[in-house]
Amino acid sequence: MTSAPEPDAGLLAPGWAGSPAASATSDAAYLRALLDAEAALTRAQAVLGLAPEAAATAVTAAAGSDGFDARDLAVRARAGGNPVIPLVADLTKAVGAEYGPYVHRGATSQDILDTATMLVAVRTLDLVRADLARTEAALARLAADHRDTALPGRTLTQHAVPTTFGLKAAGWRSLVLDARDRVTSVRNSLPAQLGGAAGTLAAFTAYGAQDPTALVAAYARELGLREPDLPWHTLRTPIADLAGCLAFAAGALGKIATDVLTLARTEIAEVAEGSGGGSSAMPHKANPVRSTLVAAAARRAPQLAATLYGSLAAEDERPAGAWHAEWEPLRDLLRLVGGAARDAAELTEGLRVNADVMREHLELTHGLIVSERLSADLAPVLGRARAKALLTELAQRTYTEGRSLAELLAEQPELAKAVDLDPAHYTGAAGTLTDRALERR
Amino acid sequence: MTSAPEPDAGLLAPGWAGSPAASATSDAAYLRALLDAEAALTRAQAVLGLAPEAAATAVTAAAGSDGFDARDLAVRARAGGNPVIPLVADLTKAVGAEYGPYVHRGATSQDILDTATMLVAVRTLDLVRADLARTEAALARLAADHRDTALPGRTLTQHAVPTTFGLKAAGWRSLVLDARDRVTSVRNSLPAQLGGAAGTLAAFTAYGAQDPTALVAAYARELGLREPDLPWHTLRTPIADLAGCLAFAAGALGKIATDVLTLARTEIAEVAEGSGGGSSAMPHKANPVRSTLVAAAARRAPQLAATLYGSLAAEDERPAGAWHAEWEPLRDLLRLVGGAARDAAELTEGLRVNADVMREHLELTHGLIVSERLSADLAPVLGRARAKALLTELAQRTYTEGRSLAELLAEQPELAKAVDLDPAHYTGAAGTLTDRALERR
Amino acid sequence: MTSAPEPDAGLLAPGWAGSPAASATSDAAYLRALLDAEAALTRAQAVLGLAPEAAATAVTAAAGSDGFDARDLAVRARAGGNPVIPLVADLTKAVGAEYGPYVHRGATSQDILDTATMLVAVRTLDLVRADLARTEAALARLAADHRDTALPGRTLTQHAVPTTFGLKAAGWRSLVLDARDRVTSVRNSLPAQLGGAAGTLAAFTAYGAQDPTALVAAYARELGLREPDLPWHTLRTPIADLAGCLAFAAGALGKIATDVLTLARTEIAEVAEGSGGGSSAMPHKANPVRSTLVAAAARRAPQLAATLYGSLAAEDERPAGAWHAEWEPLRDLLRLVGGAARDAAELTEGLRVNADVMREHLELTHGLIVSERLSADLAPVLGRARAKALLTELAQRTYTEGRSLAELLAEQPELAKAVDLDPAHYTGAAGTLTDRALERR
Amino acid sequence: MTSAPEPDAGLLAPGWAGSPAASATSDAAYLRALLDAEAALTRAQAVLGLAPEAAATAVTAAAGSDGFDARDLAVRARAGGNPVIPLVADLTKAVGAEYGPYVHRGATSQDILDTATMLVAVRTLDLVRADLARTEAALARLAADHRDTALPGRTLTQHAVPTTFGLKAAGWRSLVLDARDRVTSVRNSLPAQLGGAAGTLAAFTAYGAQDPTALVAAYARELGLREPDLPWHTLRTPIADLAGCLAFAAGALGKIATDVLTLARTEIAEVAEGSGGGSSAMPHKANPVRSTLVAAAARRAPQLAATLYGSLAAEDERPAGAWHAEWEPLRDLLRLVGGAARDAAELTEGLRVNADVMREHLELTHGLIVSERLSADLAPVLGRARAKALLTELAQRTYTEGRSLAELLAEQPELAKAVDLDPAHYTGAAGTLTDRALERR
Repeated sequence: MTSAPEPDAGLLAPGWAGSPAASATSDAAYLRALLDAEAALTRAQAVLGLAPEAAATAVTAAAGSDGFDARDLAVRARAGGNPVIPLVADLTKAVGAEYGPYVHRGATSQDILDTATMLVAVRTLDLVRADLARTEAALARLAADHRDTALPGRTLTQHAVPTTFGLKAAGWRSLVLDARDRVTSVRNSLPAQLGGAAGTLAAFTAYGAQDPTALVAAYARELGLREPDLPWHTLRTPIADLAGCLAFAAGALGKIATDVLTLARTEIAEVAEGSGGGSSAMPHKANPVRSTLVAAAARRAPQLAATLYGSLAAEDERPAGAWHAEWEPLRDLLRLVGGAARDAAELTEGLRVNADVMREHLELTHGLIVSERLSADLAPVLGRARAKALLTELAQRTYTEGRSLAELLAEQPELAKAVDLDPAHYTGAAGTLTDRALERR
Repeated sequence: MTSAPEPDAGLLAPGWAGSPAASATSDAAYLRALLDAEAALTRAQAVLGLAPEAAATAVTAAAGSDGFDARDLAVRARAGGNPVIPLVADLTKAVGAEYGPYVHRGATSQDILDTATMLVAVRTLDLVRADLARTEAALARLAADHRDTALPGRTLTQHAVPTTFGLKAAGWRSLVLDARDRVTSVRNSLPAQLGGAAGTLAAFTAYGAQDPTALVAAYARELGLREPDLPWHTLRTPIADLAGCLAFAAGALGKIATDVLTLARTEIAEVAEGSGGGSSAMPHKANPVRSTLVAAAARRAPQLAATLYGSLAAEDERPAGAWHAEWEPLRDLLRLVGGAARDAAELTEGLRVNADVMREHLELTHGLIVSERLSADLAPVLGRARAKALLTELAQRTYTEGRSLAELLAEQPELAKAVDLDPAHYTGAAGTLTDRALERR
Repeated sequence: MTSAPEPDAGLLAPGWAGSPAASATSDAAYLRALLDAEAALTRAQAVLGLAPEAAATAVTAAAGSDGFDARDLAVRARAGGNPVIPLVADLTKAVGAEYGPYVHRGATSQDILDTATMLVAVRTLDLVRADLARTEAALARLAADHRDTALPGRTLTQHAVPTTFGLKAAGWRSLVLDARDRVTSVRNSLPAQLGGAAGTLAAFTAYGAQDPTALVAAYARELGLREPDLPWHTLRTPIADLAGCLAFAAGALGKIATDVLTLARTEIAEVAEGSGGGSSAMPHKANPVRSTLVAAAARRAPQLAATLYGSLAAEDERPAGAWHAEWEPLRDLLRLVGGAARDAAELTEGLRVNADVMREHLELTHGLIVSERLSADLAPVLGRARAKALLTELAQRTYTEGRSLAELLAEQPELAKAVDLDPAHYTGAAGTLTDRALERR
Repeated sequence: MTSAPEPDAGLLAPGWAGSPAASATSDAAYLRALLDAEAALTRAQAVLGLAPEAAATAVTAAAGSDGFDARDLAVRARAGGNPVIPLVADLTKAVGAEYGPYVHRGATSQDILDTATMLVAVRTLDLVRADLARTEAALARLAADHRDTALPGRTLTQHAVPTTFGLKAAGWRSLVLDARDRVTSVRNSLPAQLGGAAGTLAAFTAYGAQDPTALVAAYARELGLREPDLPWHTLRTPIADLAGCLAFAAGALGKIATDVLTLARTEIAEVAEGSGGGSSAMPHKANPVRSTLVAAAARRAPQLAATLYGSLAAEDERPAGAWHAEWEPLRDLLRLVGGAARDAAELTEGLRVNADVMREHLELTHGLIVSERLSADLAPVLGRARAKALLTELAQRTYTEGRSLAELLAEQPELAKAVDLDPAHYTGAAGTLTDRALERR
């Protein structure tokens, strides 16, 4: 057993380890963002004449260094309950006696940590968006290529009526676009945080600001974040919005993974991942690993989002617990979705579609997959009631006699003439719907 | 013990029992919406010439009746796993032999149940929006009335620096407006559902539709719902969006409740509910019941939303479980938020604010609530290091000697001159922020 | 749209509507349990001489009536935030002037509601246990009958190595037994609740009890519940334990449902539900409805349990929200699991097993399903490295040449002799494990 | 922005960073446990004569090395979706050509990862138990020391009737003991995992085991884990049991934290943490940091547990996603609870109790805190109805006249004689209950 704490590297997280999102959400990335926030605060004060320009330069230079130790800060964070307190001490020391007093001046820990979180979120969401774009493009190609590839539509696990793989891929793509839209909208709304000890900006006034809201604006500009209407220490709309769009994205990708896992089953084999994962013991196996990891992320995201939604109910001006409970779940959501988006891009770009197998499967029900159509075709000929009775009888006989509906109907040529038994002809508006869905950009 | 099933009336749900949202989400309301959807489907077919006008009239008339028995349908729903199957049977019978065949023609159960759910959601969200509007208006009044009412800002449960009740109320209001915006946006996006057995609209083609997407448009128009781009049997964006906006609304109201519960504590008593709940045993008690019920809703909503987000990962064209798992949680969320919005409206409209008590509490720390300001005021006089040392010493002495900071500073008149110890003067930009927040409509 | 509140009858809940668990958890059942608790309290006081025997008789008689109106109580519950307050008023009135004062004497609302919840839980868990027993017995039969029925073992959706249906059923059964054990243990631990206004039993002392803990014991005895060590108004172990055992039971049954849904797929068809659900549009369909409803329950239970675990963090002597947030989720869990247990019993009792199809599927990988064994068999003959290289080559050829491993190996008779290609011979300890698992009672 | 992945060190996790539980659950600790499991497997095979003793020695020696790189393994884990695959490659190489083939022989990745998880869980739960023991002991002292320290009992945030701090601490302790019992019971039940590719132990047979269940027993013995009845790749009772006991423990500690956060509020100040966290800006602040971090853990644990309960529904012999979704949430739960137990121990050991303030608060309601008692005392004198009317009137007057109940009653000496207004005399059975609760060991 180890005797000293060891940093984690993602050993339990093949879904995100090694991904750009993992880098963008690492302790190092948060540390960088915390320092960016501190530097921006001093610069914004300098812009408004509340601090010397040289202080801004000194703080920015010190904050740009790699000399801060995340692990040491993590342990020291325990005393006050957040990592900004020891970081401010270290940064102040690094800046030196003259300009050290301008570090963090007027701010509260939450100003810096919330702002850093927004920076990390923006950076990670941009990675997510890029991978959603790859995924969307791959799905657009699949949908176009397979616009008319018929396969069994399945409901409650059973063959129902035919559909097309194009419509399926177009549906997946529409979810990815929905995710993109929600992620983009939230990404562009994320605000800087600045309120001081209890959200009144009072300390900035004490340090000379005539209109401290101008400082908030300058600070947000420095950071490329939105200027908030109010300090949001306990008005957690940005966190809840992140929870919502990330849970949505995870679920949207999870739908694709769920379908691929089904269609890739040994007995179905209508699709396969481009490069399946191997098995040490069984040389023949090619596991749908990308789908598996996306599916795993989709199982976790809703509950992580729930914790974040739960933190909306945060008491007072800054809360004792609700805020602290957000940090790790939000990071987990960001990196899980970041990893899942990467996996989804690779999954959809590499997906192999076995159109022949799909077509063969249309025959698995011996023609019953078009029974709905036969009801419609035969009703005018036989009347609705007789048509239904006949179909029920024929359905029964396909099982007991092991013969197809086509064979059985061939015995009654006048009926056989009235019907079209080809499943590929019974895909309804699938093509039109696919075309229409692909028009969305 | 009872021997027969009994309908529930909300005995365990004081948070929503008897509310308009309870009516709007009852079994009866769902039954009504299911029938509305069926009638709209036949009418839409008539509009396109796919069914006789008389069929539309007959189905609409039959669907308008009160003769359907939710309890009986509930039990019969078990066989097929959803209530639409027995309802179609009953409605078809009620329409009669001639036009019965036009009932539900071409549709699948999920078309009707999803559409009905959207109708129920629209109707309930409109109730929610009305109560959010009441709440917002009440909070705007509180914020304006108490723009300059100072009270202790509290962080991690401790007095930090002063703030104003106006800013607090303005912050609550901003969350309510955020909730309103999200609810409204989702409400206006909710689509009708129509796809047929596997989402291809094939049966409508079989029954003669040249372009079945025109039927979808007509159906949506009949219902006042948005026309969907694609059938969304397993593309559950609308459900996830509802989950998100409802979890947000519950949390936003939960923040208000959490604060009221704190401020209403016997020891704090800065606010009180307009009419507290009584106690049978203790004649003096006035419980903050409205806040309690809102807080309870806020504890439940995130997990209900999580279940709905989890259902995004639904396999195939229609899933075996993911869909079924949505029905009750979505209804629960709608009625919980509906009830919470009603309670929040009453809570905020009736809230009694004890401005005098707030002001008195500014003195509880013997002046230390403005220690942040003193640091700023004394630094130019003493230098930062000496100022800090002095304040730490004085803070200590307020406790050990039981004297206020003002008294202690009075012993050093040159310092006393340099500082402003009035907490009401240290509210920073609270007024400006409040004004600005109230400009939002 | 409806204009008046309507009680719910389970229209959205085919998973539990009409079940014994639905009756056992209805508003009527809770009302009955509330009245049982009130009557037991007066009787316990009479037993200890704190109330006249005639008062106990009068309260018990009045509480036994059907004249209380759940719907009316539900609406009146809103004022004080719980249904006990109006119920006590109605019961007191029903008892009459002489003995009315003995109704609810010394108790707090939570004493009665918590106790009633325990009564409802015990009654519902007994139903659950009965259905788990049916399920366990059915699975024992399936495991014994199919002890040696080989089928493909599937990992990450792909055929891996053979297993037996007996082992699969024995595994399902072991989960059901684990659920039974956890449910039984919790059921037998559920305590009565009695503490008075703040859990000190002080009022009972005021009304003359020498040792009010003796009253708690008598009260528990009257109700057949365990005597608690302490009043547990905010020590919610019983609720958390219920959450845990119910989430476990739902998941255990959910595992069975998940497997049946997979094995019942049209392409797999190794099992089928005894009587599938029909489809109005597609006469041939037989949906796995029981599994679907169990799977839906399993998707919901974890989040309901999470809400209950979350309520452990309840402040003070009685909390403002945490308690209220428990009521509906606990009832939902009880009835969901109750319904799922009923469905699981029917599912397993009726399950049809297609042993022939299972055996056929062992051939789907052209013999590769035993590649693990061939590695072991060939290593001594060829050396480990050459054996592995050969198998990888042969695996490749089965795909490219469409020939089975048996055919390919037949070309090298000396190797063919060394190996056993029959998948039914490669089920390892499946039989032994099944036998051993069936010994558990 | 960082360009390379950086390991995390707990920067966002003051609740567990630097704790023994953090070490026990680090990537390094998991890596150690994975290697322990591999070594135990080869040793167990040697014990049964299935592998040379020298192979066991060689594998154990190689597995004991520190030369494995968690970060490299984490990235390589992506291909196959789990870290065991690359680890087996590295370990095999490290063992060398002769005995390398005995590494992992017959096992599947999940055998090793599940077993390692159980080892990590056992080690972490032992740390949790030690800190629960410290917490329990500290609470026992508090309960004994304050057996008769009266303070206001609070319900729905309002003073209700008096209680004692002893009873409060005894209640907290009873929850800690409940947590200890649940954690201990689960800890002692955790099994080794060994099933091979699909849980049949077939490969071990192929490699010569007569009775592979004997190998499972030997493997479990090597590891100090329980021998499982069946391979539990998709029978996830141990994981669900861990979820339950950890969610319980988090909630139990969360209850204590919630109460401390309330009682430590500036206005209440009945307790204080031994050493509060500081604030850079406000020299006077002493934040209840330990409680805050425990409360944050309690907010997260239920949803992490929900994800684990959700993974019970895992398909087939080994699942595609459900398993993978367990790894991080279980680790998170273990370390969160580990950190919270440490914080709870420090919190309770250092808690300062202000008995004088508690007593003063009994007067805050001007005597109304004993109104329940007065009802009982006056009823025999005045009759129940007149007593109630009088009390309601007096309660009203305490507010309007600002006089205490004692003063008002003194105006009617014959009544004043009949009643006892001392709140400290109205603590009912609090002392007895405390004594009884402390008997539990």
